[in-house]
Amino acid sequence: MSIHPEKIKVIGFDADDTLWINEPYYRESEEQFCRLLKKYSSEENTMRRLLEIEIGNLELYGYGTKAFMLSMMETAVSVSAGKVTAAEIAQIIELGKAQINRKNDLLPGVIEVLTALSPHFRLIVATKGDLLDQERKLSNSGIARFFHHIEIMSHKKEENYRKLLSHLDIPASRFLMIGNSLKSDVLPVVNLGGYAIHVPYHITWFHEEVHPDQVPRNRFLSVSSLAGVLPALGISSSVKNEDHH
Amino acid sequence: MSIHPEKIKVIGFDADDTLWINEPYYRESEEQFCRLLKKYSSEENTMRRLLEIEIGNLELYGYGTKAFMLSMMETAVSVSAGKVTAAEIAQIIELGKAQINRKNDLLPGVIEVLTALSPHFRLIVATKGDLLDQERKLSNSGIARFFHHIEIMSHKKEENYRKLLSHLDIPASRFLMIGNSLKSDVLPVVNLGGYAIHVPYHITWFHEEVHPDQVPRNRFLSVSSLAGVLPALGISSSVKNEDHH
Repeated sequence: MSIHPEKIKVIGFDADDTLWINEPYYRESEEQFCRLLKKYSSEENTMRRLLEIEIGNLELYGYGTKAFMLSMMETAVSVSAGKVTAAEIAQIIELGKAQINRKNDLLPGVIEVLTALSPHFRLIVATKGDLLDQERKLSNSGIARFFHHIEIMSHKKEENYRKLLSHLDIPASRFLMIGNSLKSDVLPVVNLGGYAIHVPYHITWFHEEVHPDQVPRNRFLSVSSLAGVLPALGISSSVKNEDHH
Repeated sequence: MSIHPEKIKVIGFDADDTLWINEPYYRESEEQFCRLLKKYSSEENTMRRLLEIEIGNLELYGYGTKAFMLSMMETAVSVSAGKVTAAEIAQIIELGKAQINRKNDLLPGVIEVLTALSPHFRLIVATKGDLLDQERKLSNSGIARFFHHIEIMSHKKEENYRKLLSHLDIPASRFLMIGNSLKSDVLPVVNLGGYAIHVPYHITWFHEEVHPDQVPRNRFLSVSSLAGVLPALGISSSVKNEDHH
């Protein structure tokens, strides 16, 4: 692959599971939710039904914790065969609110990478999810100062990136996207003529999965952790020992 | 007031109840919701409680139908003293989904005004609410082609408009905002040194209300309907009879 760092003007960072931990918090909430409904349905069955309902609601609700909460409600009504109680509904609301309020821990290397890149590129956050949730996470994260702005995208398909690029007023060839999803962060950007660096995360929502062979290899590379972005872009880190303390 | 149209580069339009009907659909859903819970609580009491809960959740949930749905759930648990049934929860979900799916009718004069303004200014939509909801409404409205982009704002306070302007890369003095809310569309923009045109709508969510005296008079004006924007900006309409057919 041939990224020419000197041609890149704007770098977009995915947020959830690229800058900070997110998906594991959903897993924990799902487990609590399934346990809550254990008297009505096996945890395995509840989980399967939740996933079906989430996928069914994706077009209508989009991504984020509020969508997740509403799908949990619907699942509760369904797997309890209409027996779920008001008290259990209240617990689901509390579970969702706790997730919204949870502070998302930064992933290793984030401060180091942003510090090193920010003098050389315009950095933005380009993420799906709920606008308010993502702004809150960014603000709580302490890294908002590195970003020119946060772009919330309803989807991360080619047409959404095309709009983002027109909005940024740059050609695709001057844009690099960094993220943990081949499907959402890499494939559409590469297809438009942009560049991408894939930083896999150990948990990916199954709906985000795509096979690496589906992505043309000449405009993206994979690094095993975020710090690997720096050598890939020929940038040296001034704080590279930070993660070892 | 002295707007100099030749200095304005970007015009921001609020969406809900400025471009299309929105608040009345919430009123209808609220009425259905209160009727649904009549056996537990008077419609008046349910309405009062819903409003309290919505305000209490505003910081956590933000604006939009999903937030509204979650607040209805919480209200149902509360006013039923824990007796709301799964079947009623399912009805609330259906009520909310129907509202999300509802096509928002355009307000009078919208096509005329956008057609006349678009050759002269860069037009954007600057709105609160849920990203997916607002993109869907814009796409269903048939007027997406007039807008350079849609900016979803978590809040419409001065700092949010400041970010929008930095993002648009223009000084406040080249920005004009058009909307139905003095609090959200007029006051913060005027305070930043921008311009605004207020187009009141007959229904405003009480949380949006601000007294006109709180707004400095020299950088905004009020017109009684959207078509009034054109003479205010010295633009003539080529399709001005459209609304009379």
